[in-house]
Amino acid sequence: MGVVVQNIERADRAIIDGLAECGVATVHEAQGRKGLLAAYMRPIYSGARLAASAVTISAPPCDNWMVHVAIEQLQDGDILVLAPTSPSDAGYFGDLLATSAQARGCKGLIIDAGVRDVADLTQMKFPVWSKAIFAQGTVKETLGSVNVPIVCANELVNPGDIIVADDDGVCVVRREEAAAVLEASQKRVANEESKRKRLAAGELGLDIYGMREKLKEKGLKYV
Amino acid sequence: MGVVVQNIERADRAIIDGLAECGVATVHEAQGRKGLLAAYMRPIYSGARLAASAVTISAPPCDNWMVHVAIEQLQDGDILVLAPTSPSDAGYFGDLLATSAQARGCKGLIIDAGVRDVADLTQMKFPVWSKAIFAQGTVKETLGSVNVPIVCANELVNPGDIIVADDDGVCVVRREEAAAVLEASQKRVANEESKRKRLAAGELGLDIYGMREKLKEKGLKYV
Amino acid sequence: MGVVVQNIERADRAIIDGLAECGVATVHEAQGRKGLLAAYMRPIYSGARLAASAVTISAPPCDNWMVHVAIEQLQDGDILVLAPTSPSDAGYFGDLLATSAQARGCKGLIIDAGVRDVADLTQMKFPVWSKAIFAQGTVKETLGSVNVPIVCANELVNPGDIIVADDDGVCVVRREEAAAVLEASQKRVANEESKRKRLAAGELGLDIYGMREKLKEKGLKYV
Amino acid sequence: MGVVVQNIERADRAIIDGLAECGVATVHEAQGRKGLLAAYMRPIYSGARLAASAVTISAPPCDNWMVHVAIEQLQDGDILVLAPTSPSDAGYFGDLLATSAQARGCKGLIIDAGVRDVADLTQMKFPVWSKAIFAQGTVKETLGSVNVPIVCANELVNPGDIIVADDDGVCVVRREEAAAVLEASQKRVANEESKRKRLAAGELGLDIYGMREKLKEKGLKYV
Amino acid sequence: MGVVVQNIERADRAIIDGLAECGVATVHEAQGRKGLLAAYMRPIYSGARLAASAVTISAPPCDNWMVHVAIEQLQDGDILVLAPTSPSDAGYFGDLLATSAQARGCKGLIIDAGVRDVADLTQMKFPVWSKAIFAQGTVKETLGSVNVPIVCANELVNPGDIIVADDDGVCVVRREEAAAVLEASQKRVANEESKRKRLAAGELGLDIYGMREKLKEKGLKYV
Amino acid sequence: MGVVVQNIERADRAIIDGLAECGVATVHEAQGRKGLLAAYMRPIYSGARLAASAVTISAPPCDNWMVHVAIEQLQDGDILVLAPTSPSDAGYFGDLLATSAQARGCKGLIIDAGVRDVADLTQMKFPVWSKAIFAQGTVKETLGSVNVPIVCANELVNPGDIIVADDDGVCVVRREEAAAVLEASQKRVANEESKRKRLAAGELGLDIYGMREKLKEKGLKYV
Repeated sequence: MGVVVQNIERADRAIIDGLAECGVATVHEAQGRKGLLAAYMRPIYSGARLAASAVTISAPPCDNWMVHVAIEQLQDGDILVLAPTSPSDAGYFGDLLATSAQARGCKGLIIDAGVRDVADLTQMKFPVWSKAIFAQGTVKETLGSVNVPIVCANELVNPGDIIVADDDGVCVVRREEAAAVLEASQKRVANEESKRKRLAAGELGLDIYGMREKLKEKGLKYV
Repeated sequence: MGVVVQNIERADRAIIDGLAECGVATVHEAQGRKGLLAAYMRPIYSGARLAASAVTISAPPCDNWMVHVAIEQLQDGDILVLAPTSPSDAGYFGDLLATSAQARGCKGLIIDAGVRDVADLTQMKFPVWSKAIFAQGTVKETLGSVNVPIVCANELVNPGDIIVADDDGVCVVRREEAAAVLEASQKRVANEESKRKRLAAGELGLDIYGMREKLKEKGLKYV
Repeated sequence: MGVVVQNIERADRAIIDGLAECGVATVHEAQGRKGLLAAYMRPIYSGARLAASAVTISAPPCDNWMVHVAIEQLQDGDILVLAPTSPSDAGYFGDLLATSAQARGCKGLIIDAGVRDVADLTQMKFPVWSKAIFAQGTVKETLGSVNVPIVCANELVNPGDIIVADDDGVCVVRREEAAAVLEASQKRVANEESKRKRLAAGELGLDIYGMREKLKEKGLKYV
Repeated sequence: MGVVVQNIERADRAIIDGLAECGVATVHEAQGRKGLLAAYMRPIYSGARLAASAVTISAPPCDNWMVHVAIEQLQDGDILVLAPTSPSDAGYFGDLLATSAQARGCKGLIIDAGVRDVADLTQMKFPVWSKAIFAQGTVKETLGSVNVPIVCANELVNPGDIIVADDDGVCVVRREEAAAVLEASQKRVANEESKRKRLAAGELGLDIYGMREKLKEKGLKYV
Repeated sequence: MGVVVQNIERADRAIIDGLAECGVATVHEAQGRKGLLAAYMRPIYSGARLAASAVTISAPPCDNWMVHVAIEQLQDGDILVLAPTSPSDAGYFGDLLATSAQARGCKGLIIDAGVRDVADLTQMKFPVWSKAIFAQGTVKETLGSVNVPIVCANELVNPGDIIVADDDGVCVVRREEAAAVLEASQKRVANEESKRKRLAAGELGLDIYGMREKLKEKGLKYV
Repeated sequence: MGVVVQNIERADRAIIDGLAECGVATVHEAQGRKGLLAAYMRPIYSGARLAASAVTISAPPCDNWMVHVAIEQLQDGDILVLAPTSPSDAGYFGDLLATSAQARGCKGLIIDAGVRDVADLTQMKFPVWSKAIFAQGTVKETLGSVNVPIVCANELVNPGDIIVADDDGVCVVRREEAAAVLEASQKRVANEESKRKRLAAGELGLDIYGMREKLKEKGLKYV
């Protein structure tokens, strides 16, 4: 406890931006159905979609001191990812911290705990995915760490990993796998586009994907 | 397992449309306070209100193969109703399936599990009431059944039953009771309209409903 | 059980209005981080912010008779606060009751149970913070009490206490502490304004609040 | 509402007793992995195992009047199965009702709500599987029904269906399928017995079930 | 915050002991179905039953410093009742604190948070009713208060109130109402004894309580 | 997906046994309050206490095929640790698998999902800490991996890490930190022993730990 890692590696901006365009569901599929944070992580407002490099915070329960420390480590295009060391719904983060983070180019917050001032954050267009919305205040008494690996909402997040987040939730992509995941994601998108047109025209998935034979083999009966 | 019932009876379109106008709370009251799916079933966006005939899906956990099978059974004005055989939050349904279902006249989805691509579904105006929003992918390995009776979010739903859904949640009406429930619902609506005017004018429910006497008998004390 | 207290004291309108402007997070901090109702109390729509005097209802489970009784006790600028005596998600309150309450100047509802007709309530701009949205009907069989102290969502609420509510949740302020809390809240607001400007300009909280020294003393290591 | 069905059919005692011996997990598998009540249904004490014919109760929220009515309908070897029409944790059932039920040969209670006096019930060896243990009292004001189909903990239970319950939870078997399910269950038990011996001797499931080939085909890599 | 009230009034020992004999369900009914703590408060082992005077603790989240302070205030026959100011599952209390409390005559702990060392506490016969069992450690950094009114698991508890707890959960009795509640409880117990004998002999509640007429009036139909 | 790591390093048996003696709460504190699995992980029976080397399983939802694969990798003194890739309560594990695992020296199971046959497992003295007890069956269709790092109940577990588990829950210790953690744990145990005696004799923690001064400084008031 009590460590701040100052130099972390980040993925290419172009790769990160590409992942943002693909969105959570596609990226999650493209990397082998892994990396999704728990379903209870919900956005405070609808319509945000982003990808960004994780600056991680391991915070004591109900203590947001380390958020101030982490903000100094932010670079343009980063996102804060906070996991408390003991489960908490307390409101670690509000509009003042968002103002400070946004001033340093931070794109948002992923927090396995509570957030507050959500009306202000919505107006500022500072997106947050959180476990709770709760005004409960925190203290500044105990050290935590910044830019160490953390487990957030049941997924491991390393500093510099890419966070993809939208209305479907939050997905983490390992930095070293990001290029490959982007490529696989873009293939899915291209492939889905042609499928979408055929489906919209009334063709059935049963035919497009050739499922009828396999269903018959498994014993599906039409009555 | 592994049965698809192809011919199901549906209620009259006029009756279904009438129920949609009345809304969930009224219909639920009119049929004797029964038929409400569990409170955790929430719409992915606000403002949708519909009634439709249920095409039911009994699906294995984390396996959405049967959705493709069910889509072929859809008629214009139907709604898909999916219950997994083991509890799951996985994202059984997304924008491609919605495109396909919508192309066949499907009005929406009720799912006692997860849904994904909710930003797209919102834009498509394809309403979904679900237990979770979660991008977690599913497989296509195991058979389930289509158009068999299912228990969805703690209520029995038969194929062809009418689903009424709005911002208050989801209610099921037995097909054979639909006409009577519509009649009772419309009476409630009419009755409520006159009450609403009197209440808006400042009259008290205590007086309109003649409650003062009964409250006194029961022993209510004003101090 | 079965008592209606007719004369309750209320705080000054000016104080109440002042608290509304400050909002939940600020008021909660200003009064020593107390008074927050549980995080599960969520608004049925975004953007409402208010402060009002509590007219309390202790209601039997799934029985909304006392709401009618309470409405008669409302004065302009009040808010209804309902706690069931046994946990319940049932829909105690809908658009007719809201029409009646609104006609008497009621500003909203805080309910540790369910609410229904939320589309109508949204259109009426009658804000509700509730534990659940659920159409499940209630009965009118058993007495409860009005304007007695209640525990609502894990906080004690006395009749005449001030309820502050916004998108962050709900906070209760004791009537006799309201003036002092308002003063402390306004100081916080003023103080935050200058901080916000400095943070927006890129200054760090570490420097503004002089935290570097204390972090060093505690042993924080930069690597 | 307000109906008591007096004559219900029950399965053969021998079949019921056979199912009890097999236990929940086996019976559930033998009937095609269906019929399990939700995982939150837990026994109030460990070690009970039984099968019995369901006498069903559809009860209003927080109202246990119908339990008295149902007890008159009990025959030796029956079990009470109660579902409230609106979710409730209230304590519908305690030691007096258990004394009465036990006097009529009732073997236990399945309740999708609360139970109380659990120390007494344990001493009486009256097993209960419930959603909650909660002393909250109920009223006797509103009618429900006895021996109608109900949905209990997300499963449909018809009067006369067989309930199998043990430390793993609760499973319902349709009366008309009971003989076939028993036969399939007993085959499983016999088959498991030989497997158990081989596994206990150190043989691997990989070999006993011949899984190595299929795993290889699917692409499993040993590194 | 930061107040320790040293002199609190306690109820008569004889009254407290009488309430312990009656148990939670009876006492709760006898005082008008009020005072039950939330159903999630469960004992760490079965079979404990007690009544004791509350020494209350309002504790900061994840900070157990005040427990030490409270122990000094304990008298023989007291029980500790702890509520955190922000929801927490952390393990505020373990075997060392129990040793200290037990040495001063403390009969147990009610905690709306976590407890640890439960194997030791069971062996020591130090009963605890808690929201969670969790080893997560706490700090000793921030002040709270001792012997102030608190809301614990959704019920108000004043210092000196009587806590009754058994396998059914936890109930609070106001000190000033304790004598009357005991009297009403003992009447219930006496009354139940005669009922129990008649029910055990096979008489029906329908007859003992004369319910048949009222059920008929309400419209119950036997088919 | 689809990888089995066959050679993993394990900690010294003596160190593992030492950690078992210290127990979860002590080990968790000794390693800096980290490593606790979520509080919902509960033992299926009371009284088990162990430490063992983790053989990890990353399993598809509702698919227990990989358990068979993992059992072959077990050595005497290991424990299985299973995390599904999508949240599930299904019963992945029962008495046959336990028989097989026990035959190979396996000491128990940690599973972030469901377990069944708990009466048999209790009789076999095969301890399990799980998220749920649920008989719901699983399939054997999809590959997962064995002995890869997994996140189980919100904590990272590497193959070969030491799992410490008792009635307080489950804690993971990194293999490479095990010796140091054991040393720190044993110091705590020794230190606690002397404290326990003084506390049992009636001395106060306030005095033993010298807290009075610090409390006074912080402003604690006795009234």
